[in-house]
Amino acid sequence: MRSASSVMVVVALVVLSACAQPSNQPSTLSATDPLPSWNEGPTRQAILDFVDRVTDPAGSAFVPEAERIAVFDNDGTLWSEQPDYFQGIFAMDRVKAMAEDHPEWQTQQPFQAVLEDDMEALAAAGEHGLIELVMATHAGMTTGEFEAVVVDWLATARHPTTGRPYTEMVYQPMLELLDYLRANGFKTFIVSGGGIEFMRPWTEAVYGIPPEQVVGSSVKTVYEVRDGEAVIVRLPEINFIDDKAGKPVGIHSHIGRRPIVAFGNSDGDFQMLEWTTAGEGTRFGMIIHHTDAEREWAYDRESHVGRLDRGLDEAAAHGWTVVSMKDDWNKIFPDPMETQP
Amino acid sequence: MRSASSVMVVVALVVLSACAQPSNQPSTLSATDPLPSWNEGPTRQAILDFVDRVTDPAGSAFVPEAERIAVFDNDGTLWSEQPDYFQGIFAMDRVKAMAEDHPEWQTQQPFQAVLEDDMEALAAAGEHGLIELVMATHAGMTTGEFEAVVVDWLATARHPTTGRPYTEMVYQPMLELLDYLRANGFKTFIVSGGGIEFMRPWTEAVYGIPPEQVVGSSVKTVYEVRDGEAVIVRLPEINFIDDKAGKPVGIHSHIGRRPIVAFGNSDGDFQMLEWTTAGEGTRFGMIIHHTDAEREWAYDRESHVGRLDRGLDEAAAHGWTVVSMKDDWNKIFPDPMETQP
Repeated sequence: MRSASSVMVVVALVVLSACAQPSNQPSTLSATDPLPSWNEGPTRQAILDFVDRVTDPAGSAFVPEAERIAVFDNDGTLWSEQPDYFQGIFAMDRVKAMAEDHPEWQTQQPFQAVLEDDMEALAAAGEHGLIELVMATHAGMTTGEFEAVVVDWLATARHPTTGRPYTEMVYQPMLELLDYLRANGFKTFIVSGGGIEFMRPWTEAVYGIPPEQVVGSSVKTVYEVRDGEAVIVRLPEINFIDDKAGKPVGIHSHIGRRPIVAFGNSDGDFQMLEWTTAGEGTRFGMIIHHTDAEREWAYDRESHVGRLDRGLDEAAAHGWTVVSMKDDWNKIFPDPMETQP
Repeated sequence: MRSASSVMVVVALVVLSACAQPSNQPSTLSATDPLPSWNEGPTRQAILDFVDRVTDPAGSAFVPEAERIAVFDNDGTLWSEQPDYFQGIFAMDRVKAMAEDHPEWQTQQPFQAVLEDDMEALAAAGEHGLIELVMATHAGMTTGEFEAVVVDWLATARHPTTGRPYTEMVYQPMLELLDYLRANGFKTFIVSGGGIEFMRPWTEAVYGIPPEQVVGSSVKTVYEVRDGEAVIVRLPEINFIDDKAGKPVGIHSHIGRRPIVAFGNSDGDFQMLEWTTAGEGTRFGMIIHHTDAEREWAYDRESHVGRLDRGLDEAAAHGWTVVSMKDDWNKIFPDPMETQP
């Protein structure tokens, strides 16, 4: 039989627990573990320690909430990027769907490569080529029309090897990390080489990141009143490539202050991590290393997608933490959503 | 003597009051009036009614919090813009401070106009000329150095006729409006023709608007590691002019969704109001009309700064509310801050 005093202790603990701030919770595995898909070890501990330090108002490393800016690459950091950037697959689907109206694409790269499924020629065009492809295939559309195309594609497209919707090819440990940082007063941003208008229609539902916190590559646009309707039209001209040295520029343009924590996975993220962690005070940089050939994909220095070479060489010198997906994550993807039969 | 039951009623009211959401408060003047500097009348009532409608979860006009985007022009809408755009005065001060190193400016417009205090020639250059002036005078600087120059200038510069710091030349009714909207779940953004890097160092302290919610004109920048230090350098090239038809483009680029409420004062804000209020559902557009020659300045159709002509003609057709500063505001500027003797 439970005594009255033990009941009171239980009640007191429950009340205390309900009132506790996330930053006051001990950094150990527990029933309320904020990062259950992260294995115990130095990588996980480095995250918890960083958050504890910058959120402790009594500590010397304290950072006010307004300055807790966290930036995340998308392709290969928040969702998969194999066998090709998903936006690349989207662009290829669009090229094929529109090819009938564009006979010139039969002999014009990178369109020809897409129509002939020539992945080698397409790979040679690199990430920039893919971005250009996406942009060229949607010129003249209004931004509203483009958003509808993206939403339609995501609703029906399936990953070529897993058969899952692309929005379920996101990393469960990173979803937990996003929640954990936000619960500790961080504002989370995506900073991706991908198209800003390709990401914004779904990042809020999938990552909890609203459109205004998405930074990406873009085409030029123009505002006009068309037949009495106010629209913004996409032009066939690149406005900004948010990749490599473009990432700090994109961050400065959109956010206007230096992040204190950055997450990436490829050398396209090198300058973003460098800019972030070179700031004064306590900073945190992390590289997701794709080491799990069984549960995801294993690639780095030689990959044409998400190439990681310089980052591996210089991570230690910069004090960046390298995540091994195979060793540090006990789960890669979220459980499948229940779908209609 | 107060009875026990009346004490309980008082306690219950206090508790209820503490739990009430701002959107549930009656829209009438009271001790907790959110807009004390706005005179009672149709203008003030239009604001209160709009906020009531979009925040009432049971109403047909309800807008979820994430979509409550409010955009504000800055010059002439949140702070004064007479006798010239304050950033123009800043730029002129910079030209004069740097003229010794630039002998070519003696015969080159718009620099010559500044050095000769030729306000007519300067006015002829228009707002675009002023923006260009600001940009040209700060090429080669890092973004950190530029921020320091802005902060230093604001700390010492005083308005030519009122003698007040420029950051005290803000409109008290608009400060109240910003607070009121935020208390009702709106996210407030500045969308200004002014330089984005000129505004960001002080908008958080003055308006409660953080850097990432400021949209403005910009120069191109480049990221580099200079003598081992990671920096972003301002280039002598215009990147984007956030004015007129550029405002919807800037909104789309930075925010990624259409605002539901917009505040402006000049024809430079016309397209921003048009884009905002052309959206589906309940929308609100407001033009601040400078009608108070005694307490501020009176100007509109003929002014070279903040010209308002088309906006006055078409406000009614668009359903926009026009504020008369003279009639609708019982206070223009906040009380002076206490300063060191």
